[in-house]
Amino acid sequence: MQLVALAERLADAARAETLRHFRGGSLGTVSKDADGYDPVTVADRAAEAAMRDILAAERPQDGILGEEYGTQVGTSGLTWVLDPIDGTRGYVAGTPTWGTLVAVHNGTAPILGLIDQPYIGERFIGGLGQAAFRGPHGTGALNASRTTTLSDAIIFTTFPEVGTEVQRAGFEAVTKGCKLTRYGMDCYAYGLLALGHVDLVIEAGLAPYDIQAPIAVIEAAGGIVTNWDGAPADQGGSALAAATPALHAAALEILRSYA
Amino acid sequence: MQLVALAERLADAARAETLRHFRGGSLGTVSKDADGYDPVTVADRAAEAAMRDILAAERPQDGILGEEYGTQVGTSGLTWVLDPIDGTRGYVAGTPTWGTLVAVHNGTAPILGLIDQPYIGERFIGGLGQAAFRGPHGTGALNASRTTTLSDAIIFTTFPEVGTEVQRAGFEAVTKGCKLTRYGMDCYAYGLLALGHVDLVIEAGLAPYDIQAPIAVIEAAGGIVTNWDGAPADQGGSALAAATPALHAAALEILRSYA
Repeated sequence: MQLVALAERLADAARAETLRHFRGGSLGTVSKDADGYDPVTVADRAAEAAMRDILAAERPQDGILGEEYGTQVGTSGLTWVLDPIDGTRGYVAGTPTWGTLVAVHNGTAPILGLIDQPYIGERFIGGLGQAAFRGPHGTGALNASRTTTLSDAIIFTTFPEVGTEVQRAGFEAVTKGCKLTRYGMDCYAYGLLALGHVDLVIEAGLAPYDIQAPIAVIEAAGGIVTNWDGAPADQGGSALAAATPALHAAALEILRSYA
Repeated sequence: MQLVALAERLADAARAETLRHFRGGSLGTVSKDADGYDPVTVADRAAEAAMRDILAAERPQDGILGEEYGTQVGTSGLTWVLDPIDGTRGYVAGTPTWGTLVAVHNGTAPILGLIDQPYIGERFIGGLGQAAFRGPHGTGALNASRTTTLSDAIIFTTFPEVGTEVQRAGFEAVTKGCKLTRYGMDCYAYGLLALGHVDLVIEAGLAPYDIQAPIAVIEAAGGIVTNWDGAPADQGGSALAAATPALHAAALEILRSYA
């Protein structure tokens, strides 16, 4: 099966599982820890299991790295990187900003990425010739903004909730020069960067499955993602995503001191 | 025309105007200040004008208080309180967390409130016998959570972006006792409180049109809203919205020192 079509199929399967438990699911009830029931854990595992079942049938030769069920070594050189619910705190709080992340890594870099927001019904796909967006009001191409200076930039992060004290100081040093700072959008912020509405996303404390799909989506949209040392971010840690090389360089010059 | 049906009609009219300019509108282009074009200002004014046109035809005897076009005195004792785009920074950044707020105030308190998120297609209505929710995956009743202690509470705010230094310290004093703190959801956080997924929302620096619709929606859902002194919040300033009386009292005890 083609990789792009398969990535979409995985996200569709995950959607059914994550929506089943989101906000108490179809019954509209809010179950908080009753009988040990933890909706986000149940949904996280069910969504990843659904994706792994499809991969086992369609691409048994590929490897898998998933947040919930770990690593499965493959023989093809390709690895599917799965985060069934990125932004679990947003999921728990009912915000429509968490997402399902699917990436394909070829041993060097992510070559395909998909960010899906099931509640809104919004999906961002980048790589292998794709740079596309589908939402509740239509479809379109992904195009990062042409913003080149911090003073024109809208910056997002999950800070002040994520990162060390030093990393928080680094983020704040960048925001001081920016036009607008916003918080708490989880992976949805990367989609907005690929759409051209956000210019910078800065995060830390990431796992590989948190960042590989955003990397592919943003690069397909013309943007750039590295860590705070300017090196590839696909193995996790810190991340600096920018709409243009000039904007990336301006933020990196500040962040290097805090990396 | 019935007040509830009219409030819905106003929100529908505002939706058309806000979505026309959101994220560059139907053309998918991102216009930033080209030729002085400011999408959020254009949308804000067009949405309020559309609502005022309907009110002029249907309820000319009622007063109007709107963010964009000020006060129009009425003779009926009822005032329509309109915020066409609450969360303009979220609107500018493309996040689906801003909303259109419509309230009806009877001279004593808001008796009807409506929070609408046009991009997601989600609406919360409370007052005059209504406590209802409509979203992309169905409809339901509004019911605030039964959370009574800070240690079980999920708390939201637009802080650290809003409020004075003292107010920020007050907010942080409350969050220290809470289970989970999240940021940046604009008026959408009040909808989540009415849905039972968020337990506390704390804000400051509000105008009357920012808070009257949330007050009616949350009270219809069984929650409580006051300012940081425990007094009615409908004239703006600070706001403390809580799911239960016990939770409200616990947060108020801390916030009073910072009011």
